[in-house]
Amino acid sequence: MSSIKVTVWNEFRHEKTDEAVAKIYPDGIHEAVAESLRSAGFDVKTATLDQPEHGLTSDVLDDTDVLIWWGHMAHREVQDEIVARVKERILGGMGLIVLHSGHFSKIFTSLMGTTCNLKWREIGEKERVYVIEPGHPIAEGLGEYFEVPHSEMYGERFDIPAPDTLVFLSWFEGGEVFRSGCCYHRGMGKVFYFRPGHESYPIFYQPEIKQVLANAVRWAAPVGGPTVTFGHRPEPVEHVEPYEG
Amino acid sequence: MSSIKVTVWNEFRHEKTDEAVAKIYPDGIHEAVAESLRSAGFDVKTATLDQPEHGLTSDVLDDTDVLIWWGHMAHREVQDEIVARVKERILGGMGLIVLHSGHFSKIFTSLMGTTCNLKWREIGEKERVYVIEPGHPIAEGLGEYFEVPHSEMYGERFDIPAPDTLVFLSWFEGGEVFRSGCCYHRGMGKVFYFRPGHESYPIFYQPEIKQVLANAVRWAAPVGGPTVTFGHRPEPVEHVEPYEG
Amino acid sequence: MSSIKVTVWNEFRHEKTDEAVAKIYPDGIHEAVAESLRSAGFDVKTATLDQPEHGLTSDVLDDTDVLIWWGHMAHREVQDEIVARVKERILGGMGLIVLHSGHFSKIFTSLMGTTCNLKWREIGEKERVYVIEPGHPIAEGLGEYFEVPHSEMYGERFDIPAPDTLVFLSWFEGGEVFRSGCCYHRGMGKVFYFRPGHESYPIFYQPEIKQVLANAVRWAAPVGGPTVTFGHRPEPVEHVEPYEG
Amino acid sequence: MSSIKVTVWNEFRHEKTDEAVAKIYPDGIHEAVAESLRSAGFDVKTATLDQPEHGLTSDVLDDTDVLIWWGHMAHREVQDEIVARVKERILGGMGLIVLHSGHFSKIFTSLMGTTCNLKWREIGEKERVYVIEPGHPIAEGLGEYFEVPHSEMYGERFDIPAPDTLVFLSWFEGGEVFRSGCCYHRGMGKVFYFRPGHESYPIFYQPEIKQVLANAVRWAAPVGGPTVTFGHRPEPVEHVEPYEG
Repeated sequence: MSSIKVTVWNEFRHEKTDEAVAKIYPDGIHEAVAESLRSAGFDVKTATLDQPEHGLTSDVLDDTDVLIWWGHMAHREVQDEIVARVKERILGGMGLIVLHSGHFSKIFTSLMGTTCNLKWREIGEKERVYVIEPGHPIAEGLGEYFEVPHSEMYGERFDIPAPDTLVFLSWFEGGEVFRSGCCYHRGMGKVFYFRPGHESYPIFYQPEIKQVLANAVRWAAPVGGPTVTFGHRPEPVEHVEPYEG
Repeated sequence: MSSIKVTVWNEFRHEKTDEAVAKIYPDGIHEAVAESLRSAGFDVKTATLDQPEHGLTSDVLDDTDVLIWWGHMAHREVQDEIVARVKERILGGMGLIVLHSGHFSKIFTSLMGTTCNLKWREIGEKERVYVIEPGHPIAEGLGEYFEVPHSEMYGERFDIPAPDTLVFLSWFEGGEVFRSGCCYHRGMGKVFYFRPGHESYPIFYQPEIKQVLANAVRWAAPVGGPTVTFGHRPEPVEHVEPYEG
Repeated sequence: MSSIKVTVWNEFRHEKTDEAVAKIYPDGIHEAVAESLRSAGFDVKTATLDQPEHGLTSDVLDDTDVLIWWGHMAHREVQDEIVARVKERILGGMGLIVLHSGHFSKIFTSLMGTTCNLKWREIGEKERVYVIEPGHPIAEGLGEYFEVPHSEMYGERFDIPAPDTLVFLSWFEGGEVFRSGCCYHRGMGKVFYFRPGHESYPIFYQPEIKQVLANAVRWAAPVGGPTVTFGHRPEPVEHVEPYEG
Repeated sequence: MSSIKVTVWNEFRHEKTDEAVAKIYPDGIHEAVAESLRSAGFDVKTATLDQPEHGLTSDVLDDTDVLIWWGHMAHREVQDEIVARVKERILGGMGLIVLHSGHFSKIFTSLMGTTCNLKWREIGEKERVYVIEPGHPIAEGLGEYFEVPHSEMYGERFDIPAPDTLVFLSWFEGGEVFRSGCCYHRGMGKVFYFRPGHESYPIFYQPEIKQVLANAVRWAAPVGGPTVTFGHRPEPVEHVEPYEG
């Protein structure tokens, strides 16, 4: 598994403009996530919005098995042609893990086909994340639930297609619930949406979060299935009686 | 149920340019479909590509419970802003039934998030459509299977998200299979993709096809569920202990 | 819709032995549920454990479109042969609505294939039920959520197969979440599990609960789909080249 | 992965009573399957119906990560208490792979909750198995489809719950289709039903079949998720306002 190639993408803006965020993630959220995945044995690089082509050149994508996506305040600045390029790769087999506020990213909404809207509140309330499908590989190494002591609330209804597999459900102190871990097959690729992880809290240093991300990378990595082909097949596989119309 | 308001949309090009098609559908495919739904008691109007705003003005959509979509050769001519308008309505509760070659329409691919590509062949081969979920309302009045004597073949892999409910599977004489009846919840709306129905064959006059379309209209009609709201909820529903960060 | 025939089944024990329960449901929970469904226009009868054949004779089932099941302390007293009879009817198209503590009934666990176990607590805490799939017919007439002021808690993990459609999620004051409205196709029939409804609280008099039950009856009613047949088909539908082995 | 422990169970009757079968599988189907899994690097043992406790003692199950099940003519001879023991293990996390005629085994029907009935025919016709979910690990190493030159036909409707993930669909020469590769989460365990594999044909020596079985073993193996607990939780996780009733 150590050879799975991960690219962690971050818009990397909060960390430069907001002192409180910079204090928690001095090298950016991408570095915190990358570091935790490196410790788990993956081959990890990073890319950010302000790099040429947002750091997501064809060469970088050629060398990526699983892409992790963090964005929040600059979703609109991501160029449509880069989004199209990334989407083509995912439908072709690359894994995608979308974190927290990435629910509103162009790549996620484009793959889901819905608004991906939700209710939210930021008062540092408690979140308790329950494992709903304990036999799923993304639940490896977890307990029946884990807590995020201070979290931004995301509340239902979350406007997504029903997940192929729902792995986590969150309870919030303020009274809401949320589908927090959602697995999707899209094309030849796999997509995992994971709710926890606000920029104002040190959530990406929490052991359970790191465990989930490592599990999700393994789950989302390409499997070497068939290369799917499409289009005109003038010759039937089986003999067909001629039809004169 | 007689008050469900249906709008049948057709790009209406084949029927004007191809004599063979015009012979089968002299008033256009939309009129054949509309007529069969009128007989089933629905309140039906039609709209076509070459009308102003493709016939899909806000007024028309205000007056539509279920939209039926046929397109084939002119998907690209459908304006993006009209697609966005229709999509917003569907996510807001309007039903959508996509017919056959509509798999490549902008509205369907945008709602699915995938390419919706497939394999195809047109040699007039036989199709046998099996009911897979016999307790689903779209199976009402059908037998265990029905046949389309001469059909365009669509073959897997069909690049769609796994349907919420798979109602029909097709067998083709030439050796392929296909997921032919696929139900999706998207936003507050419902989407049904139905495979049979090529412009070169009189498929829309077939009793089983008419039955499926009437069933699908009833299934896809809005249900009067909650109006979903999104966005900032500064006040928690329950008391939350203050957090000083 | 007024002609849907509903049978409300109740083990009818708590109401005879527990004064507090009898005060809330003097004629039994079945009569409270039946009365609310009668007001909604359905044709409703009741049956209870201590009747001959538990009130579920073949004649009664012949005359039932949707069966509603309440049981709690006497699941084991339900005879296996009656359970088998009911199960055959459900797989044959009859609808089943399982209420609250019915999660442990023989009929539900047999249809699910899992233990249907869960965590529980009875301290009268608050429950908030969120609509997750607002386009589903069982959500008709509801708001984005409704509250049950005093409820028995059921907490995840609920050991069920992932529902075909998840309609409701519950938040509990004491810190848990639960999949509270779960739809399943089983055979030609449909099954809806609905969590709220403890015998110690007047939950079945609550307008939202009555609305959900009426919606669920309409959803679960048989649709008149194909009568499925099974077994040996010595003659192929299509010509097959003889094989000599 | 080489340490996954597999037990291949076979009723082992055909091979003793039917010369044609014995010629194809001289040591029993279980040995053919076991041998192919050993070559794939798994730690494989076998068990058969006529052994004490059908070879499925607690010790054997303690030492099993994934159980493979073949049965056909003697499903009824499998003792209910052994079935209960196996089921408890699966719900507790052990993987189960059910082959072909095992659709009617007690363990599979008990886990599915439905009849698992189907249509069938044995005239040696051709089967073509299509990969429907190319990003699923069970599709690893396969092409877009593979053929079984001579096969027993199983036709829809297959009376199963809709699979969590549908991986394969079969086309049959005689005109039917079938959901041939079906994945389920049940309890903490995972179940894969795989259609191909009749006793009269050398199907288990076919490379694609061996590939699917190895893939399925890896997919079904336990993941080390949370140990789920159930029952009374008198103490809430969060503070609850006392309720006096």
